[in-house]
Amino acid sequence: MQALMQDRPLTIPHIFHRAERQFQDKRIVTTTLRGEVESTYAEWASRVRRLATVLDQLGVPEGARVATFGWNTQRHLELYFGVPCTGRVLHTLNIRLFAEQVAYIAEHAADDVVFVDRSLLPMLWPMADQLTTVRYFVVLDDGADSEIPDDPRIRDYEELLAAAEPFRGRFEVADENAAAAMCYTSGTTGQPKGVVYSHRSTVLHSLVSLTVDAVGLSERDTMLPVVPMFHVNAWGLPYAAIFAGTSIVFPGPAMKPEALVSMLERHRVTTTAGVPTIWMGMLPLLGDHDLSSLRVVVGGGSAIPTALSEGWREAIGIPITQAWGMTETSPLASLASPRSHHDGLSAEQLIEVRATQGQAVPLVDLRIVDMDTGEEQPWDGATPGELQAAGPWIASSYYGDEGRDAFTSDGWLRTGDVATMDEHGFVRLVDRTKDLVKSGGEWISSVELENHIMAHEDVVEAAVIAKPDPKWTERPVACVVTEEGKQLTSEQVFDHLRQRVAKWWLPDEVWFVDELPKTSTGKFSKKTLREQLLG
Amino acid sequence: MQALMQDRPLTIPHIFHRAERQFQDKRIVTTTLRGEVESTYAEWASRVRRLATVLDQLGVPEGARVATFGWNTQRHLELYFGVPCTGRVLHTLNIRLFAEQVAYIAEHAADDVVFVDRSLLPMLWPMADQLTTVRYFVVLDDGADSEIPDDPRIRDYEELLAAAEPFRGRFEVADENAAAAMCYTSGTTGQPKGVVYSHRSTVLHSLVSLTVDAVGLSERDTMLPVVPMFHVNAWGLPYAAIFAGTSIVFPGPAMKPEALVSMLERHRVTTTAGVPTIWMGMLPLLGDHDLSSLRVVVGGGSAIPTALSEGWREAIGIPITQAWGMTETSPLASLASPRSHHDGLSAEQLIEVRATQGQAVPLVDLRIVDMDTGEEQPWDGATPGELQAAGPWIASSYYGDEGRDAFTSDGWLRTGDVATMDEHGFVRLVDRTKDLVKSGGEWISSVELENHIMAHEDVVEAAVIAKPDPKWTERPVACVVTEEGKQLTSEQVFDHLRQRVAKWWLPDEVWFVDELPKTSTGKFSKKTLREQLLG
Ligand SMILES: Nc1ncnc2c1ncn2[C@@H]1O[C@H](COP(=O)(O)O)[C@@H](O)[C@H]1O
Repeated sequence: MQALMQDRPLTIPHIFHRAERQFQDKRIVTTTLRGEVESTYAEWASRVRRLATVLDQLGVPEGARVATFGWNTQRHLELYFGVPCTGRVLHTLNIRLFAEQVAYIAEHAADDVVFVDRSLLPMLWPMADQLTTVRYFVVLDDGADSEIPDDPRIRDYEELLAAAEPFRGRFEVADENAAAAMCYTSGTTGQPKGVVYSHRSTVLHSLVSLTVDAVGLSERDTMLPVVPMFHVNAWGLPYAAIFAGTSIVFPGPAMKPEALVSMLERHRVTTTAGVPTIWMGMLPLLGDHDLSSLRVVVGGGSAIPTALSEGWREAIGIPITQAWGMTETSPLASLASPRSHHDGLSAEQLIEVRATQGQAVPLVDLRIVDMDTGEEQPWDGATPGELQAAGPWIASSYYGDEGRDAFTSDGWLRTGDVATMDEHGFVRLVDRTKDLVKSGGEWISSVELENHIMAHEDVVEAAVIAKPDPKWTERPVACVVTEEGKQLTSEQVFDHLRQRVAKWWLPDEVWFVDELPKTSTGKFSKKTLREQLLG
Repeated sequence: MQALMQDRPLTIPHIFHRAERQFQDKRIVTTTLRGEVESTYAEWASRVRRLATVLDQLGVPEGARVATFGWNTQRHLELYFGVPCTGRVLHTLNIRLFAEQVAYIAEHAADDVVFVDRSLLPMLWPMADQLTTVRYFVVLDDGADSEIPDDPRIRDYEELLAAAEPFRGRFEVADENAAAAMCYTSGTTGQPKGVVYSHRSTVLHSLVSLTVDAVGLSERDTMLPVVPMFHVNAWGLPYAAIFAGTSIVFPGPAMKPEALVSMLERHRVTTTAGVPTIWMGMLPLLGDHDLSSLRVVVGGGSAIPTALSEGWREAIGIPITQAWGMTETSPLASLASPRSHHDGLSAEQLIEVRATQGQAVPLVDLRIVDMDTGEEQPWDGATPGELQAAGPWIASSYYGDEGRDAFTSDGWLRTGDVATMDEHGFVRLVDRTKDLVKSGGEWISSVELENHIMAHEDVVEAAVIAKPDPKWTERPVACVVTEEGKQLTSEQVFDHLRQRVAKWWLPDEVWFVDELPKTSTGKFSKKTLREQLLG
């Protein structure tokens, strides 16, 4: 028997129109190179309406990818809505990637237009000719003095907006499963792969971020997203904030700890989110600032060290709330707030609870699976298994159907994380099957580094492993076996790599060893290597 | 371009399985005639699994309607999940209706089985033979001593459960738009009409009830639903509570103010919801109880008088939060919490804000429309129009396609309420187009009363209007014109009605008048009548 409810698609236009009217006076602040700029939802919304016209005027087809290369700013938020509300697909490029990777990704997604912050143009422009599908580079002038090339593909955002009539009426997207945004993840080995979010997934993910036991964003909050808008849509928080009517403070390029902590204080921010490296950098500064407005500090992307969370709790009274997720999971999948069954635990035990990756949020299902047998593992807090995820905002495949082995035959995502789960479903990550190093919230591909190092004529083999690091969570360390009779220095390895990878990918150390331990199937045994070298 | 997200339907089984594992220790308390019974989610869930088997054993087909005739109890909550999780449709019968109406509704829905509280069996059993589609009456023994008829259709709930193996594995409902529950509303004139909720609408509605700015149910709450489970699924709160992992206190038949207030106190209830008549009854008792655990008291179903809300605020520090909705809207559509743009208002002005029906919750769209021209009216806080609603949990039609004029050609629900909306979308009801009286949260059909009175041989015409009432919000008053030369007393009118309607439908007063004012089209002008009689 069919129900008799209205068939209303879950789409980003609903979020937009609701916010435009109900929350017209709420604030959006952006730190720019020229100081802080303050605006309201009403002003933002009218700019989104102009942007809609601009996209038409630029001839961007329906479903085409509109890329961004930018900081966390109000303009970026205009694109977050203007692009999907008009049926195009937002594609946020990661400004931290090596030029070749960005070019690969933009080509792969066949981006039609790129909106780029002026301050970042010098990074993007050198590869402009490699972005063969891109017809326009629209410059968002953030006050940087970087030169603007004299090129027919260059447009100025403010000029386009000023000349455009705002779109009138309601944005309509008929199919809630239409693509709204995409994001590449350099996860696992091989080339970066594209995750494509839908309107439905975005609306549901946002809604859950508004629930009390998740992030609990409300109309009375002020949110500062430290996590970049090119990282899984800043963990979906901009969409959630606009849904709730939350005031937003965007840090723009001001990502230094001093700048961030001062913004938190001055704007009486209640909610913020970012990777542990950020919170680590701020820790020494907390004592000098009044952060009493803060309600929740979400940390994710890497495990939150207990000392870090406790440091925050001692300094300002609230610990860091650990969240777990991936680009493939939109990303919010689980969150570690102590639940009422933890009441009565000792302070130390509560610290342990907060050190887990937490419990699945509504609409997400998690399970752990034995990697050899494929059997589901018990939730006993001890037996590990590969963590797998299902839910309406979890990827079913990658763009172009690449990386099929990341999905099980029954349609669950294989996360590449290894975890235990306790009887209440609290997840604890214990290992990783993917061969990657996560540094400051960004992935470094061990395999890619190894391939580059092994391409050096004097190298026989090389393995890269992750070394725990207090500041960056992890840093890569290279173990190198040289050709017999050849001598290499670390500097030579670095020199070789510098032309091939981003600077922050360079291993912290190079260890020269006589041979690399192997598994029975002949692969590098990174586990043994880690034990040998890191103890 | 299609997105690449998993196609996971939004279904009640997800809510069930999540709760069963994540919240296994959370409490469910029920007041019964034999005292309080306490249980856990784990126990409840295993009984739901047994119930699934029982429904199979009773041969209830997929999609068939399983009716309930009961108080707010844990067993009712078992049916709330066991029925839709197995693909059947929960149909909650309203125990306040006149026997003939219940029979009409059960026939109309073609109920296959009725689960009935033993204490209510004496009300239901006399019409058993009229319920021609009902194969079984399953008695939930709540400790009442009412006789259980010796009839082959009678079954005992606990016996069935005890004999059934629990269903193992995961409940699956493939289509999120499948019917999950239905509820009849005696709204407007004519016969009661059925609203059919889907799994999707229930999940979305529940999720929004978990958001901070709506009800904000959380795992740390304890919720006492005073609103009956036969009223729009107790406003959807049982589904929301189980989704959040909220502990629940069910009042059972203990609906007296003294009993309710003592349950609120003893169980440290944080969240409760009901119609104003209930809160009115409790008001004098508040001072004698420690209700400091209460976080939110939701009032709806009728306008919340300012004096009532303020009375609560003065007594326990929190006002009543007004919510607006209908059976056709699942029901949560808008909620009146002051927003940050109200900061700085005076105490009197804030009282005014709380006296509105509030702002649309996420996923609901509201508009006001001029009834003559069909034009959308401005949100200026002054211009009235018929309130219309759209959204994924708003009815698109009634069961059997009755009452089509309640829906606009563009698919919005015509609510029959007349409202203004201010620039932030705060709704204020100012009138009603439907000819009904709402007494203690239940509808009384003016037209039906009028028809009954006019059927009296000595009556020429009769009109029923709503008179404001401090206890019941509204009570019916009848205006009667008698045949020339005939004399009638109020008592004679009451006697005539007693055999035809429920006792609480009897008008409070009968006014004998010489003639009834008419509109230009010859209809009773109730507006004029109200002005003449109520001033
Ligand atoms: N709270 C966390 N604790 C540990 N690792 C995490 C956490 N959150 C994310 N990760 C890691 O980051 C991966 C997702 O990376 P990304 O797709 O770049 O967001 C996960 O699969 C984990 O390996």
